[in-house]
Amino acid sequence: MTSPAPTRAYRRLSVEERRRQIITAALTLFAHRAPEEVSLDDVAEAAGVSRPLVYRYFTGGKQQLYEAALTSAADALTDCFDEPPEGPLSLRLARALDRYLAFVDEHDAGFSALLQGGSVVETSRTTAIVDGVRRAAAEHILSHLDVADPGPRLRMTVRMWITSVEAASLIWLDAEKEPPVEELRDWLVEQFMAVLTVTAGRDAQTADVVRSALGMETSEGPVAALARRVLPVVSDAAHLL
Amino acid sequence: MTSPAPTRAYRRLSVEERRRQIITAALTLFAHRAPEEVSLDDVAEAAGVSRPLVYRYFTGGKQQLYEAALTSAADALTDCFDEPPEGPLSLRLARALDRYLAFVDEHDAGFSALLQGGSVVETSRTTAIVDGVRRAAAEHILSHLDVADPGPRLRMTVRMWITSVEAASLIWLDAEKEPPVEELRDWLVEQFMAVLTVTAGRDAQTADVVRSALGMETSEGPVAALARRVLPVVSDAAHLL
Repeated sequence: MTSPAPTRAYRRLSVEERRRQIITAALTLFAHRAPEEVSLDDVAEAAGVSRPLVYRYFTGGKQQLYEAALTSAADALTDCFDEPPEGPLSLRLARALDRYLAFVDEHDAGFSALLQGGSVVETSRTTAIVDGVRRAAAEHILSHLDVADPGPRLRMTVRMWITSVEAASLIWLDAEKEPPVEELRDWLVEQFMAVLTVTAGRDAQTADVVRSALGMETSEGPVAALARRVLPVVSDAAHLL
Repeated sequence: MTSPAPTRAYRRLSVEERRRQIITAALTLFAHRAPEEVSLDDVAEAAGVSRPLVYRYFTGGKQQLYEAALTSAADALTDCFDEPPEGPLSLRLARALDRYLAFVDEHDAGFSALLQGGSVVETSRTTAIVDGVRRAAAEHILSHLDVADPGPRLRMTVRMWITSVEAASLIWLDAEKEPPVEELRDWLVEQFMAVLTVTAGRDAQTADVVRSALGMETSEGPVAALARRVLPVVSDAAHLL
């Protein structure tokens, strides 16, 4: 790594660009290895800069760099759920999940290490960053439900589903990415509609959300397909009505 | 804590009893405060023994004592899901959740600190203990579904629901234990039946489980009540069929 290219690049890049270059290199490394298996030497090498330079930009060392990389990943993850409010809810959610699952796919080892905890660089600050993503994702989803002031049951339903999605992502990575990502995406959308419907039975605000969401679904859409697949399974249970 | 009682107790108790006495005292303290706010002095005082005695039994200090208390809590949590295979699935699950939520209620601060991570004494070993509870709970639930060899989709559904239950517990503690515990329990049971039914639309094994589970439900039971509450909400969506 003593080729002249990094030095020339160093002269050209602004502080912010240089910082971004180091974070991008760090994120790529953290994405494929657990944080404790990444050294500042590795990051300097991947970014094509010297180790002192990494320290100059990140005086807090690896912990600070890890938090910067994590914040950058958190922003990217939060953006996944930023979806225009157009069309049926199930399709909006499917598009958001496409982006989210692509991120999970790309950052697999790093994503697992981060969410499963037990990482040596995990602190209450990194936990807060991850929790921030969860809260931002929940706010994005709630905004699609088109209610002025989401009540506790609706909020809790959304937050529980987000936790399920995280759990599904980790299990999926652990199961060598089975089932195929499109099936996982559709299944997660269906689970959201199902738990929302359960809450609708207990909460008038959620009932309005479900009625309005179903009104926008089409007979060609994923919710209709779910209904057609599930009805034969539950049709024997007429004794319950 | 210089009263003669502890000394007399010390002479009477076996090593295992003494160890248990210290763990019980530690668990009570960890239940109400975050682990980093509990000192070995506190544990010794609560157990009515000297600090050197605590060190003699737990040569690894606070970390070892914390892990022992955690293992004891993990065993108690795992036992919550040990339910005889009798009656409708929804009622078995409700009884298991009654025990689980009573544990959450009793150990609130400690439960949150443990599951939310960021605790200074959290390590890969403590993470493994918590993960062991999740796996054991999943195995207990799968055993109630009465399938010889649960496939990946059925397993994933159960594990995702367990994560939802954890998330719900943390949100519930954070929301000053609202909704009331009985409502939370029923709601979680309903969510399980709902996500299981969604998976039934994608997986023949799960479809058999749902058919068999619904066959055991009665018109007075929670699943029937759920169906009666939800049908009016979804009945406008006939255009999807």
